[in-house]
Amino acid sequence: MSLTFASASADKEVLENSGAFSPKFDANGLVTAVVTDSRDGELLMVAHMNAEALALTLETGIAHYYSRSRDKIWKKGETSGNLQTVKEFRTDCDQDAVWLKVSVAGHDATCHTGRRSCFYRIVEIENGQAVTKITDDTRHFDPAETYSKA
Amino acid sequence: MSLTFASASADKEVLENSGAFSPKFDANGLVTAVVTDSRDGELLMVAHMNAEALALTLETGIAHYYSRSRDKIWKKGETSGNLQTVKEFRTDCDQDAVWLKVSVAGHDATCHTGRRSCFYRIVEIENGQAVTKITDDTRHFDPAETYSKA
Repeated sequence: MSLTFASASADKEVLENSGAFSPKFDANGLVTAVVTDSRDGELLMVAHMNAEALALTLETGIAHYYSRSRDKIWKKGETSGNLQTVKEFRTDCDQDAVWLKVSVAGHDATCHTGRRSCFYRIVEIENGQAVTKITDDTRHFDPAETYSKA
Repeated sequence: MSLTFASASADKEVLENSGAFSPKFDANGLVTAVVTDSRDGELLMVAHMNAEALALTLETGIAHYYSRSRDKIWKKGETSGNLQTVKEFRTDCDQDAVWLKVSVAGHDATCHTGRRSCFYRIVEIENGQAVTKITDDTRHFDPAETYSKA
């Protein structure tokens, strides 16, 4: 990785205009990444990226994230084959979030449960309680089989 | 606010299935909120919600967030008039992120810069540097005028 990033400006005008991409990392050195399907805009997942993940993604065109649970760089789809090719890379006004429009290889599935999207449940209030309801239960791969090889 | 949430289960199977909405808050008591336009799916913004913001949003149907910079509940659009009516509320596999599909009132603008979306810039590599380029410069309101009333 050779790409480095300018420090986020304290001047809002600079941060919000065109010019250097200067991600505003949080206390853990991360920005939020929103990932949608470049085909139809469906929200696939939300993840986090550190400077190394941002650089690897921009340099290779393949999405890399930072796994907080495993505390390391995570090349999404390395085990399942569902690699993400980045078609467009965006950032928001204060540069603490990025938006990746991706094309998903392999099973065309992003969620580790085998579903296309991690957002397969709606939340509603029912009898005074917030409950989740599954709206997509189609599994594009068998997680037990796919991740047993990892 | 009367709605409360079950504690996030340590059992992944429980967390990933239908049943109680049990948001997995981070160390600061927040989950990530992704906000898209219910009309066409455009990504409008990314924000954060604490338990109170989640409850207010689910109970009133109007999006409330938690402002980290102001350290308080933020009823989005209260100043600008660009209130967000929630058409659908989703959560992801590990329940540390939510997805709100909203209808935006007022100027049909979400970004404090007056643009429709906060993600008005692409990021590209140019001469070995990561740079941002503005792709939408249409201002639906004048921030200086709108926020001077605040």
